Amino acid sequence: MSAYATLERRFERLSAIGHALSILSWDRSVMMPTGANAGRGDSMAGLEVMAHELLADPVVADLLAEAEAAPPDEPWARANLAEMRRAHIRATAVPAGLVGALAKATSRCEMTWRRARPAADFQALAAELAEVVSLTRATAAAKGEALGLDPYDALLDDYQPGVHRSHIDTIFAELAEALPQHLARIVERQVPPRKAAITFPAAQQRDLALDLMAKVGFDFEQGRLDESAHPFCGGNPDDIRMTTRWDERDVATGLMGVLHETGHALYEAGLPAAWRHQPVGRAGGMVLHESQSLLIEMQACRSPAFIGYLGHRLRLSFGDDTALGADNLLRLYHHVEPGLIRVDADEVTYPLHIVLRYRLEQDLIGGRIEVADLPEAWAAGMAELLGVKPPDDGVGCLQDIHWPVGAFGYFPSYSLGALLAAQLFQAAERAIPDLDTQLAKADFAPLLAWLRHHVHGRARSVPFEQLVEDATGAPLGTSAFLAHLDRRYGGS
Amino acid sequence: MSAYATLERRFERLSAIGHALSILSWDRSVMMPTGANAGRGDSMAGLEVMAHELLADPVVADLLAEAEAAPPDEPWARANLAEMRRAHIRATAVPAGLVGALAKATSRCEMTWRRARPAADFQALAAELAEVVSLTRATAAAKGEALGLDPYDALLDDYQPGVHRSHIDTIFAELAEALPQHLARIVERQVPPRKAAITFPAAQQRDLALDLMAKVGFDFEQGRLDESAHPFCGGNPDDIRMTTRWDERDVATGLMGVLHETGHALYEAGLPAAWRHQPVGRAGGMVLHESQSLLIEMQACRSPAFIGYLGHRLRLSFGDDTALGADNLLRLYHHVEPGLIRVDADEVTYPLHIVLRYRLEQDLIGGRIEVADLPEAWAAGMAELLGVKPPDDGVGCLQDIHWPVGAFGYFPSYSLGALLAAQLFQAAERAIPDLDTQLAKADFAPLLAWLRHHVHGRARSVPFEQLVEDATGAPLGTSAFLAHLDRRYGGS
Repeated sequence: MSAYATLERRFERLSAIGHALSILSWDRSVMMPTGANAGRGDSMAGLEVMAHELLADPVVADLLAEAEAAPPDEPWARANLAEMRRAHIRATAVPAGLVGALAKATSRCEMTWRRARPAADFQALAAELAEVVSLTRATAAAKGEALGLDPYDALLDDYQPGVHRSHIDTIFAELAEALPQHLARIVERQVPPRKAAITFPAAQQRDLALDLMAKVGFDFEQGRLDESAHPFCGGNPDDIRMTTRWDERDVATGLMGVLHETGHALYEAGLPAAWRHQPVGRAGGMVLHESQSLLIEMQACRSPAFIGYLGHRLRLSFGDDTALGADNLLRLYHHVEPGLIRVDADEVTYPLHIVLRYRLEQDLIGGRIEVADLPEAWAAGMAELLGVKPPDDGVGCLQDIHWPVGAFGYFPSYSLGALLAAQLFQAAERAIPDLDTQLAKADFAPLLAWLRHHVHGRARSVPFEQLVEDATGAPLGTSAFLAHLDRRYGGS
Repeated sequence: MSAYATLERRFERLSAIGHALSILSWDRSVMMPTGANAGRGDSMAGLEVMAHELLADPVVADLLAEAEAAPPDEPWARANLAEMRRAHIRATAVPAGLVGALAKATSRCEMTWRRARPAADFQALAAELAEVVSLTRATAAAKGEALGLDPYDALLDDYQPGVHRSHIDTIFAELAEALPQHLARIVERQVPPRKAAITFPAAQQRDLALDLMAKVGFDFEQGRLDESAHPFCGGNPDDIRMTTRWDERDVATGLMGVLHETGHALYEAGLPAAWRHQPVGRAGGMVLHESQSLLIEMQACRSPAFIGYLGHRLRLSFGDDTALGADNLLRLYHHVEPGLIRVDADEVTYPLHIVLRYRLEQDLIGGRIEVADLPEAWAAGMAELLGVKPPDDGVGCLQDIHWPVGAFGYFPSYSLGALLAAQLFQAAERAIPDLDTQLAKADFAPLLAWLRHHVHGRARSVPFEQLVEDATGAPLGTSAFLAHLDRRYGGS
C-alpha cells in the first residue's frame, strides 16, 4: 500500500472516533442522565487521547514525508494530503505537558465561571482566567512557531485556516467606523413591534419548524431536531443533530433559531460523501460555518419576502393575532437596539460586540493588557462602540464562556461569517435573478443548489480565500454587508 | 509502571471504546435516522477493530507473562489479571481471516433471514446458513483449542464462562422429563383469563412503568427508558438504556416487559464502581444476566403477592375494569399454553423450546446433522417436547435470529438463567423470611440488597460455579425451579 493510502486508512480510524465523539457529545446534552457525567467524561477523554495519538504518532511524519515526495495527482487527494500534514503539525506543535496543563486550567476555570457569572463576581474568576491566558500565550507561541504564524494568527487558524489579523484589522476598522452611524439612523426611524397576546403550544411550534426545515432543504433521513438547554447543531454529516428550545409565549425567536441551526446543518449535509472520512471532506472552518447559518437566517429567512411567507404560515398555525401580521413581523425581525449582551444582539449591533472582544483578546494574548484590566477596558469599549454601560461584570466581561474555556480566536468567526453571508447572498442573487420571488414562496432549491456548488461541496479542497473569490468574485470585505444593511434598514 | 498497571491502562482504553459502542448501539435502535445507517456501521466497525487490536497486540502477551510472574496480592486484581488473560486468548484464538469470513457470512445471512422468515422460505436461507455453520465449526475448533475446551463448550464460554455441556445435558434431561408432565396437569386445571375491554393510553402506561421501576430499585440518575421496535437493555453501568413498546390494548405484557429489563438494569447498576473500567468489573455472563431479569420478572413480579399490588396500581391508573381484578390478573400472568413461538412462551413451556435448540445446535456444530436436516428435526422435536406442529418454517426453525447471526451457544443461557433465578430467589426467601409481605407492598429494598451482595457486587471476581454455590449453597440444578412451578401452578 502507498504511504498516502496508509495515511487514508489512519484517517478513517480518526473519523470513526470523531463520529463516536459527535454522537456521545449530542447524547450528553440531550439524553444522558446526570449521574452518567463522570463515566461519559472518562470515555470521551479516552477517545480523544486515542485520536491524538493516532495523529501525533512519529510514523505519521515518515508517511507524510514519503507521500509528499510523490504526491497524488488528483487535486482532492493532493488537498487531502495537505490537510493531513496540517493535522499532524497541529497535533505535535504543543508539548504534551502544556496541552494537559491548559486542559486542566480551562476545565477548572469553566466550572468557576459557571458560578461567577450569575454572581457577577469577577474577582472569583480573575486568578483562574489569568492562568488560562498565561497558558494560552504559551500555546499560541508554540502553534505559531510550528505553523509559521504570529501567535494570535495561530489561534485564529484553529477555527478558520486562512484568516489573519492583518485582514481582520482592516475589516473591523471599517465596521467600527460605519456601524455606529447606521445604528443611530436606524434606531431613530424604527417603529417598535407589538407583542403577541396568544400562546404558542410547543407541539405546534415543532410541527411548523419541521415543515419549514424541510422547505429550506433539510432531509430528515439525515438528522433530527430535539430539545436542549442551549440550542446547537451537532452530530456528523450523515446524522446531523440539531436542538432548540420552545418558548410558548414567543414563537418568533425559536423558529428563527431553528432556521439558523438548519443553515449549519445544510452545510454539513452538503459535504462530499466520497470524502466523508478524510480531513479534506470536512467543513472548511468556523467563518464558513457561521456564514451558512447566517445566510439562511439573516439573509434568506429575515428577508421581507420570506417573512411574508412565514407570517402566512404562523397565522395558519396559531390564528390571526395582529402581532402575526406581515408589518409587525417585519418590525419584530428587523428590530435594532444597542444592548449589553452579545447573544441577544441584532445583526447591526452584533459586530460591535465582536470588535470589542477581538481587540481585547489580542491585547491579552499579546501581553498588552492583563486579566485584571478587563472590566475597565470592557466598559470603555462598550461606551465607545455601543454607547451602553454594563451595571456589573455579569452582563459585562463575564457574559461569554469562550475565554474561560480557552477559545481565544473564535469570536471573529461570528462577524466574518456575517460579512461572508452577505457577500455570498449577493453573489447568489446575481446568479438567481428571481431569488426574492422564490423565497416569498419558500422555494429554497435554487439557493441551496448554488450553495452546494460554491460552498458545501467544496469542503476543504481549496483554501478559504480562493473559495470566497471563486464564489463571490472578490476577497472577503465589508461592502456587501453594509449594502445589505442599507437595503434592509434604509440608507443615509 | 508495573506490567499489571500498564495492562489496566490498556483496559481503560478498551472500556472507553466499549462505552462509546454501547451508546452508539442504543442510539442506532432508538434515535438514529435511517439514512445514517452506513456511516454508523463504518464507525462502529472501526471502533471494534481498534478494540480488537488493543487486545490482540503481541505486547499484551508479554505484559501478561510479566504480570503473571508476580501476580497482584489483592484478590480482585488477581481475578482481573485472569480476565485479561482470557480476553487476550479469545482475541487471538481465531485467525483474522476466519473472523472476517464469519463476520461477512453472518452479516449476509442476517439480511437474507430478515426476508426469509416472513416468507417462511427455508430454501432461501439454507445455503447461507450452511456457510455460517461451517465457519462456526472452524471457529469453535480454534477457540476450543486455545481455551482447552471441546468446540461446543468453547461457544458456550462466549456467553457464560464456567458452563459446560456435561452439566447442561444433565439439567436439560431432567427438564425434558419433568416439564411435559407439569404442562399437561396445568393446562387441564387452569381457567382462561378475561380480556380487558378498555384501552390503556401510552403516556399513562409510561408513568406507571417509571414509578414501578423506581419501586423495584432503579435510579433514573443512572439510565433511561425509551421506545424501540424490539425492547432491550443496553448502555453501560453508569448509564443504562432500557427500551419497551406500548400497546394501548394490552397493559399487562408491556409492564412485565419493562420489569424484566429492569432486572437486567439492576445487575448492571450494581456492578462495583471501583472496577468500572476493568474486565473483572463486568457482568459475569449471560446466564447470570438472564437470571437477574427473570428473578425480577418471573419470581418477584409474577408472584401472587406482587400481582396483588400491581392490580391495585392498575385499577388506580386505568379504572375498575374487571380484567384488572386480582383473580383475573393471576390467571393472566400465570397462563400456560404450549405454542410454536419461543419469545411468546410462558415459563413452563419456555425451557422445552430451549432444549430443542440446544440439541439441534450441538448436532449442527458436531456435524451430526446438516442445515438441510433442520426443518424435519425441528418438527420432530416440537412434537416430542411440546406436542405442537409448525404449519411452516417461518414459525418453525426460521423464527430466531440467533443462528443466522452466528450466536450458537447462546440459547442455553435463557433456561439456565430461569433455573438460577428460581434457585437464587429460594435462597433469598430463606434469608428474608417476610419477603412475600414486602413484595405485596412493592418493597424491593431487602431483595435488592441481597442480590447486590450475592450477585451484582461480585461481578467477575469469582468463577460462575463458586458464585452460585456461595449464594445458594448448591450447584446450579433443576430442583428450585421445579419446586417453584409446583408452588405456583400446583403439584401432582
